[in-house]
Amino acid sequence: MGKSWREKLLGAPLRSEEEQDERIGPAAGVPVLGLDALASASYGPEAALSIMISLGAAAAMHIGPIALAIVLVLVTVYFSYRQTIEAYPKGGGSFAVAKENLGERAGLLAASALAIDYILNVAVGISAGVGALVSAVPALLPLTVELCLGILALLTIVNLRGLRAAGLFFMAPTYLFIGCLGATLAVGIYRALASGGHPTPLAAPPFVPTATTAATAWLLLRAFSSGCTALTGVEAVSNAVPIFRQPTIKLARRTLTLIVGILGIFLLGVGFLCRAYHIGATPPGQPGFQSVLSQIVGAVWGRGPVYTMTMASILMVLCLSANTSFADFPRVCRALALDEYLPAEFAHRGSRLVYTAGIITLAFAAALLLLVFKGITDRLIPLFAIGAFGAFTLSQAGMVMHWRRRGGRHAKKSLLVNLAGALVTGGTLIIIIVSKFTEGAWITVMVVPILIWLFSAIRRYHCKLQAASATEGPLDLSALNPPIVVLPLKRLDGVTRKSLRLALAVSPEIHAVQVLTEAMQTENLSESWRECVEKPAAEAGWHTPKLVVLNSAYREFFGPFLEYIKKLALENPNRTIAVMVPELVERKWYHFIIRHRATLLKGLLVWGGGPQVAIINTPWYMRDFPESGVARKRFSILNWLGLGLDRLHGRPPPEIELGESPSTPRPR
Amino acid sequence: MGKSWREKLLGAPLRSEEEQDERIGPAAGVPVLGLDALASASYGPEAALSIMISLGAAAAMHIGPIALAIVLVLVTVYFSYRQTIEAYPKGGGSFAVAKENLGERAGLLAASALAIDYILNVAVGISAGVGALVSAVPALLPLTVELCLGILALLTIVNLRGLRAAGLFFMAPTYLFIGCLGATLAVGIYRALASGGHPTPLAAPPFVPTATTAATAWLLLRAFSSGCTALTGVEAVSNAVPIFRQPTIKLARRTLTLIVGILGIFLLGVGFLCRAYHIGATPPGQPGFQSVLSQIVGAVWGRGPVYTMTMASILMVLCLSANTSFADFPRVCRALALDEYLPAEFAHRGSRLVYTAGIITLAFAAALLLLVFKGITDRLIPLFAIGAFGAFTLSQAGMVMHWRRRGGRHAKKSLLVNLAGALVTGGTLIIIIVSKFTEGAWITVMVVPILIWLFSAIRRYHCKLQAASATEGPLDLSALNPPIVVLPLKRLDGVTRKSLRLALAVSPEIHAVQVLTEAMQTENLSESWRECVEKPAAEAGWHTPKLVVLNSAYREFFGPFLEYIKKLALENPNRTIAVMVPELVERKWYHFIIRHRATLLKGLLVWGGGPQVAIINTPWYMRDFPESGVARKRFSILNWLGLGLDRLHGRPPPEIELGESPSTPRPR
Repeated sequence: MGKSWREKLLGAPLRSEEEQDERIGPAAGVPVLGLDALASASYGPEAALSIMISLGAAAAMHIGPIALAIVLVLVTVYFSYRQTIEAYPKGGGSFAVAKENLGERAGLLAASALAIDYILNVAVGISAGVGALVSAVPALLPLTVELCLGILALLTIVNLRGLRAAGLFFMAPTYLFIGCLGATLAVGIYRALASGGHPTPLAAPPFVPTATTAATAWLLLRAFSSGCTALTGVEAVSNAVPIFRQPTIKLARRTLTLIVGILGIFLLGVGFLCRAYHIGATPPGQPGFQSVLSQIVGAVWGRGPVYTMTMASILMVLCLSANTSFADFPRVCRALALDEYLPAEFAHRGSRLVYTAGIITLAFAAALLLLVFKGITDRLIPLFAIGAFGAFTLSQAGMVMHWRRRGGRHAKKSLLVNLAGALVTGGTLIIIIVSKFTEGAWITVMVVPILIWLFSAIRRYHCKLQAASATEGPLDLSALNPPIVVLPLKRLDGVTRKSLRLALAVSPEIHAVQVLTEAMQTENLSESWRECVEKPAAEAGWHTPKLVVLNSAYREFFGPFLEYIKKLALENPNRTIAVMVPELVERKWYHFIIRHRATLLKGLLVWGGGPQVAIINTPWYMRDFPESGVARKRFSILNWLGLGLDRLHGRPPPEIELGESPSTPRPR
Repeated sequence: MGKSWREKLLGAPLRSEEEQDERIGPAAGVPVLGLDALASASYGPEAALSIMISLGAAAAMHIGPIALAIVLVLVTVYFSYRQTIEAYPKGGGSFAVAKENLGERAGLLAASALAIDYILNVAVGISAGVGALVSAVPALLPLTVELCLGILALLTIVNLRGLRAAGLFFMAPTYLFIGCLGATLAVGIYRALASGGHPTPLAAPPFVPTATTAATAWLLLRAFSSGCTALTGVEAVSNAVPIFRQPTIKLARRTLTLIVGILGIFLLGVGFLCRAYHIGATPPGQPGFQSVLSQIVGAVWGRGPVYTMTMASILMVLCLSANTSFADFPRVCRALALDEYLPAEFAHRGSRLVYTAGIITLAFAAALLLLVFKGITDRLIPLFAIGAFGAFTLSQAGMVMHWRRRGGRHAKKSLLVNLAGALVTGGTLIIIIVSKFTEGAWITVMVVPILIWLFSAIRRYHCKLQAASATEGPLDLSALNPPIVVLPLKRLDGVTRKSLRLALAVSPEIHAVQVLTEAMQTENLSESWRECVEKPAAEAGWHTPKLVVLNSAYREFFGPFLEYIKKLALENPNRTIAVMVPELVERKWYHFIIRHRATLLKGLLVWGGGPQVAIINTPWYMRDFPESGVARKRFSILNWLGLGLDRLHGRPPPEIELGESPSTPRPR
C-alpha cells in the first residue's frame, strides 16, 4: 500500500515487544541526550566574554572565576538531578516533579518553559552551526536557510527512525568532538604549566583592545548569567530516564555524570586557557571576528590540519546539538498528553517506538522559526536560557518539597542539595530575566502564559467531552425503529441504483427526493419510477421507495433538501433520518477539485443536521464501470487538430452525484 | 440560518418567475454592456497617437484618417453584429456562432480568446482607472492595489445583485460621461469651424516635439492596429441578447446602435479636435505626461470646474469599463457549461438570477492578475485586443458560413457584409499579432491552447462519467442482502451506544471492532459486553452484535481496522460492508483542527474502501449531552491563578470517536 518509501526512510515498523532492544546505554546516551550540554562548552564562555569586551585584557582575568562559578552551579544542578533520576525513574522531568510537589499550575509553568526552550534550542542550535559553517565557507552563504532546513530534516528523520538509530548516528561526531577538544585543552594546559603560566601561542590571538570601562559587579553578574547558557541541556537525562536499558537508574546517572563531567572540565579548561593565552571575545558580526574556541585551538595547534579537524568537529556538534530537544521535547509532550493537556496522539508511540507526534511538532515549530528568521536566530539566544532555568528552578524547588514530605536523615541531606540548587538556579534566572528583559526575554515571559492557556483549554475540552459522553448500564434498546432513508437523486443511473439497493436492504421507508432546480438536462422520472423501481420492488417483496419532488423557487438544491430533512425529523421525533449521499470517486488528483458537491452535502449534514441525522455515504468508483471507448481515449493536440471532439458532440451532461430534474410527485 | 448578511449584501433571493422583471432595455443596456466600448473612446486615440509620437506635429494630421479607418471597421463590425443578434436571439456570442458554423474547435478557440479578453479587460480597465486617479491624487499612490481590489469587489457585488441593479448603478456615471464628453466635442468642433479651422485653446496643449522619423506605411498600420483597441467590447451586446426585455431583438439592436453610434462620434470628434488643436500624445510615464483627452478637454474648457467634472467622469467610466466583462464572461462560461466544457455550476443561475459561478470566477482571476501585477497592468494592454479580434474574426467568418448555408438574396447581401467584417477584423488581427508579438501578445497565443485543452479535458471527463454510470431498465433487486455493519469502538460511551442502536436497527449482522493499540486508558469491554449489549439485545429480540478484538502489533489503529474490512469484503463478495463512523461534533471554530480522526477514517474509506464499502457517519453533538459544571466554566487568568484547574485533576482522557482498548474477543 505504498508504504515502501516510508519504510526506506524510517525503517520497518517495530513491534511493541522490541522496545527493550531500542533502549540505550551511556555510550549512546551521551550523543542522544548530551549534545546540547556539550555544545554549550563552545558558546557559554564566548557569551560571558562577549559581555566583558569593554574590559579589554582584564576580561581574560575575570573569565577564570566566572567559569568556576558556572561550574559550581553545574555541580549543584548535577547533584540535584542525580536525585531526581532516582526519585522519578519513569522520566520525571521538570513537569512531573513540579506537578507532583508544587501543584498542577507549577507543572504547567515548567512544561511551557521547557517546551519553549526546546523549540528555541533546535532553531538556535542549527542556525548557530550553519552560521559557523557559512562564515568558514562564504560560498554557502546564499544557501543558509536551505542548509538549516536540510539539517533539521536530517535530525527529524534520524529521530523518527528510533532511539538506537539516533544514538549510532550521532556517536561518531560526538566522540570526535570530545576527543579533539579534550586533546586541545590537555595540550594547552600542559604547555601553560610547563612555561610557568606564559605559553607562546602557535597562532597568535587577535590583539585585545584596551579597556573602556572598569569591572562592575553588575557587569560581572551579567557575564556570569550569560555564561550560564552553558547549562542548558543538563536536565535532558532526567526527563528521559526510561530510554536507558536495565539497570536504568544506574545507567542514566552514569550518563549524566559523563555529560556533566566532560562539560565541567571543558568549561574550566577554556577558562584557564583564556587566561593563559590572554584570549578575549571579538565583537561578533564585525570584520576580524574570531570565536574564542577558534583562538584557543589556533593558539594550541596553529592553523594546520588539526585546527581544521577540531573546528569541524565543533561545528558539527553545534549543528547537531538540537538533537537533545528531539529526544526530550516529545517526552514533555507525552507527559502533558497523559494528563490530557495535549491530544492523545502525543502519548502514542509511532511505528519506530518514538513519540512521532512530538517529533513532528517540534520539527514544524523549529522550521517555522528558521523560515521567519531566515536562518539567523542570533536574536533568539537571549530568550532561550530563561526556559531552561525556569524549569531548573521549579524542578529543584519541587524536589525540596519532595524530600520535606519524605522526612528522614537521608532526605534532609538531599533536601539541602536541592535547596542549594533551587536558590542558585532561581537567582541565576532572576539575573537572566532582569539583564535580558529588553533584549527579548519578555517574549518568553509573554509566550509562557499563552501556552499554559492552550494546555488548560485542551484539558477543559477533554473533560467536557468525557462528561458529555459518559453513560453507564445496559444498552437502551427501547423505541428502536429502522431509520427513514432519504436519497437525493437526479436520474436513475448506476450510482442511484446502487444506493437504492442499499436503502432497500436497510429500511422499509425510503424517500427518494428530486429537487427541481434550473437543470440543464431534465429527465421525467415519474414514468420510469413505476416501471423501474416500484414494480421490481413489489415483485421482489420489498417495500416501495417513495418518490418526492420538491420545487426550488430559488434554483438551489441545498435549501429545499435540508428543509425536507428538517421537516421529516420534526414529524418523526423518535426516528433517525439516514441521508444517503452517493459519491462518485475517481482516484485522480483532480478528484479533490471537482467533486465537491457530495462533500459539501456531507459537511452540511454533519455540521448542522442535528442529532437525528445520520449520513450514509456510498462511494462509487469510476473503475466499477466498464469503460467506454470514448472514456479511454486521451486528449492530444494532434487528436484535437485532426479529429476527436466531434464524436463527443451533443451528449447531455451527467452530473451524477446529486439530482435535480422535473417529474410529477407520486405521493403514496 | 445566518443568511441575513448575505441578503443585506446581495438582496433577497429572486424566484425564477421574476426573471422578466430583471430584464433591461437600452437605457440600462448601454451602461451594463457599453461601458467597455465607450471607455475605448479615451484610450483608442491615445494608443494610436502614442505610436506616432516620433512623427511630431505630423501625427495630428494622420490621426484624422486613422480615426476614420477605425470607425469604418467599427461600422462593418456593427452591421455584422446586428445580423448576429437577429440570427442568434438566444445570445449567440462568438462561441455559439463559430461552433455552429465552423465546428466545435473554432467555437472553443473563440470562447478561449473571449474568456482571456474579458479577464484582461477587468484587470486592465480597473488598473487604468485607478492609475489615472492616483496620478491626479498622488496621496493615494500607496493604496493602488487596495483601490483596485476595492473597485473589483464593488463591481462583483453589484453584478451579483442582478442585472437591473447593475443597470441602475452604472447609469449615472455612464450618462454623465456621455454628456460631458459629448458637450466637449460639440463645443470644440463648433469653435474649430467658427474659427476657420484654427481655434485658440483655452489651456494650451504641451508643445509637440519635432519629428524624428517620417511616416511609413508600417508605422501608420501599427497606429491603426493600436487604435483598434477602441473596438473591444462591441461584441458584448450580441453575447447577451437574452438580458433584454421584449421585443428582445429590437431592443438589443437599438442598444448596439446607441453604443456604436456614440463611440463612432466620439472617435471622429477626438480625431478632428486633435487635428484642429494640434494635439499629440505625450510619452507616458515621463514628467509632463498629459493624456490626449485631458489636452482636448483643457483646450475646450480651460482648467476650470467643467474640466474637473469631465475628467472625473472619464476616470469613473474607465474604472467601471470592467463591468462589460461581468455581464458577458458568465454568459460565455454558461454556453461552455451547457456543452459540458465547464462544470454545470456555470450554467445555473444564482439567488439573484445571474450566473454566480462565472461572476466569481472572473472576480478571482482578475484579482489574481491585479495582485500579481500590483495594480499596474500596462504591460497587459498589448495582450488584450488579440482575444477580442480573434473572436470578432471567428464570429464574422461563422456568419459568412451561416448565410452561405441559408442561401437566398437577403442572405447574399448579409454574407457580403459579414465577409467584409471578417476580412477587416482578420486583417487587423494579423497586424496586431505581428506588431505586438514580442510585446506580450505571445502570451495570449500560448494561453489559448491551454484553455482549449482544459475545456476539452472537462468535456471528456463528463462523457466518461456519463458512459460509466448509464444504465437502463428496471432496478435489479436480485441477491439483495442486509449490509454487514462494522463499528469501531473504544468503550461503551454515549457515542458508541447511539451508533450501536442505529446498527441494530439497520442490519442483523454487526461487528463491533476494538483495535488494541498502546492506549493510555483501557477499559476491558469483554465483561461489560455481555451485560450491557448482548443481554439487552437478546431480551429485546434483536440479533447480537459481535465484539471483535484486533491486536495492533505496531500500535496503530487504521492498518488492522482496514485489513479487517478488506477481509470481510473478500469473504462476503455479495454484501455491502457498512462502516459506522461515530463523529463528535462541536460547532466551534476549532472543530476543524482537532477532530480529524473520524474525518481521516471517512476519507480513507471513501478513497480506497472499494465498491463494497459504504460509510455510515453518525454525528454526535456536544449539545446533545447535559453539560457538566466543569464544561461550562470558561478559562480566565484569574481563575487559573486562583482556582479552577485542581478540580480537573486526575480524570482519564476521553478520545471518543474511534476506539482502542483491550478486551478478550468473543467469537460467536
